[in-house]
Amino acid sequence: MTNNNGPLEHLICLLSGLPGLGNRSARRIALHLLSKRGALMMPLANALSDTAQNVKSCNICGNLDMIDPCAICTSHKRNNTQICVVAGVSDVWAIERTGAYQGKYYVLGGLLSALDGIGPEDLRINKLIEIIESSEAIEEIILALSATVDGQSTAHYISDHLAPLSVKVSHLAHGVPVGGELDYLDDGTIITALRSRS
Amino acid sequence: MTNNNGPLEHLICLLSGLPGLGNRSARRIALHLLSKRGALMMPLANALSDTAQNVKSCNICGNLDMIDPCAICTSHKRNNTQICVVAGVSDVWAIERTGAYQGKYYVLGGLLSALDGIGPEDLRINKLIEIIESSEAIEEIILALSATVDGQSTAHYISDHLAPLSVKVSHLAHGVPVGGELDYLDDGTIITALRSRS
Repeated sequence: MTNNNGPLEHLICLLSGLPGLGNRSARRIALHLLSKRGALMMPLANALSDTAQNVKSCNICGNLDMIDPCAICTSHKRNNTQICVVAGVSDVWAIERTGAYQGKYYVLGGLLSALDGIGPEDLRINKLIEIIESSEAIEEIILALSATVDGQSTAHYISDHLAPLSVKVSHLAHGVPVGGELDYLDDGTIITALRSRS
Repeated sequence: MTNNNGPLEHLICLLSGLPGLGNRSARRIALHLLSKRGALMMPLANALSDTAQNVKSCNICGNLDMIDPCAICTSHKRNNTQICVVAGVSDVWAIERTGAYQGKYYVLGGLLSALDGIGPEDLRINKLIEIIESSEAIEEIILALSATVDGQSTAHYISDHLAPLSVKVSHLAHGVPVGGELDYLDDGTIITALRSRS
């Protein structure tokens, strides 16, 4: 890399900044791409600019889609009495993969975090309250947030702000993951699973 | 991902095929890119097509560069009595990073591998012999190949074919890696390091 192959160094520099990649994996990916220029490298370049130009955030729920409002928000097949509040788009994908939920979504765009300096004004919480106030169909808000400190404090904050409104607020159940061995679980999970036994 | 956001699914599919990445890491990278469209996603798309169009293999040594022959092959500062034979371009980068070698390179483009069905005709071995035969300056061929079965059989094959020519053939030294603890080394390395003690 002491040669003056500028674009390749620039490409490796950009790749190494992606989440989960470092210098070595970025070099490996760049060489792999260069060995498949026509079949992989140019299609990837086109897919990147195509996605950057055509995929947008839904103005209602914050999900990513080709159309705005997104396919879930505009679908007549989805139950519009439920809104599932999630931190990010990847959570929407995770829940959609299960096929177990037929309601609508609301993407906060993050979680409250004192450490990272993310406050309520950085998330889309006010807009969520507006949506609930302006629609009479909504009956239940499902807070599907991580069982972490940030996730739970965000859930508490939202619960507090939804309390004056006439909607039911529910949380995901805590307990033993399906397929999980008791032996490997932390104490907190076991205590919660014991208390919520059915 | 059940929505019809075609380009995003296509992008994730392409990313998940890259070495070291799977479905989950590809989704994570795609979302990270979408959150930085202007600052990262479009520059990455441009860097990919720029690199695909402008970086070429050197016709002499097989190294990657903007110019052909590459900067190392055309440099007058490099010692043209030595050729360092390596398996891939990443090996050239690894040796160049040390700054300890001032000769020229020759990239084979792989290693002989009976398991993967890679024979001598798949590597650039004949061209190496042609280069050595046609140049009177070359005095030493340094085989800098991996200390694996494939690397060592490739080194043996090349040594055999270079034997009739009037060049010295050398190999990288085997031994204890600098900073390596004896306790963690395999027996083969310790035996070789003992035999080659100095």
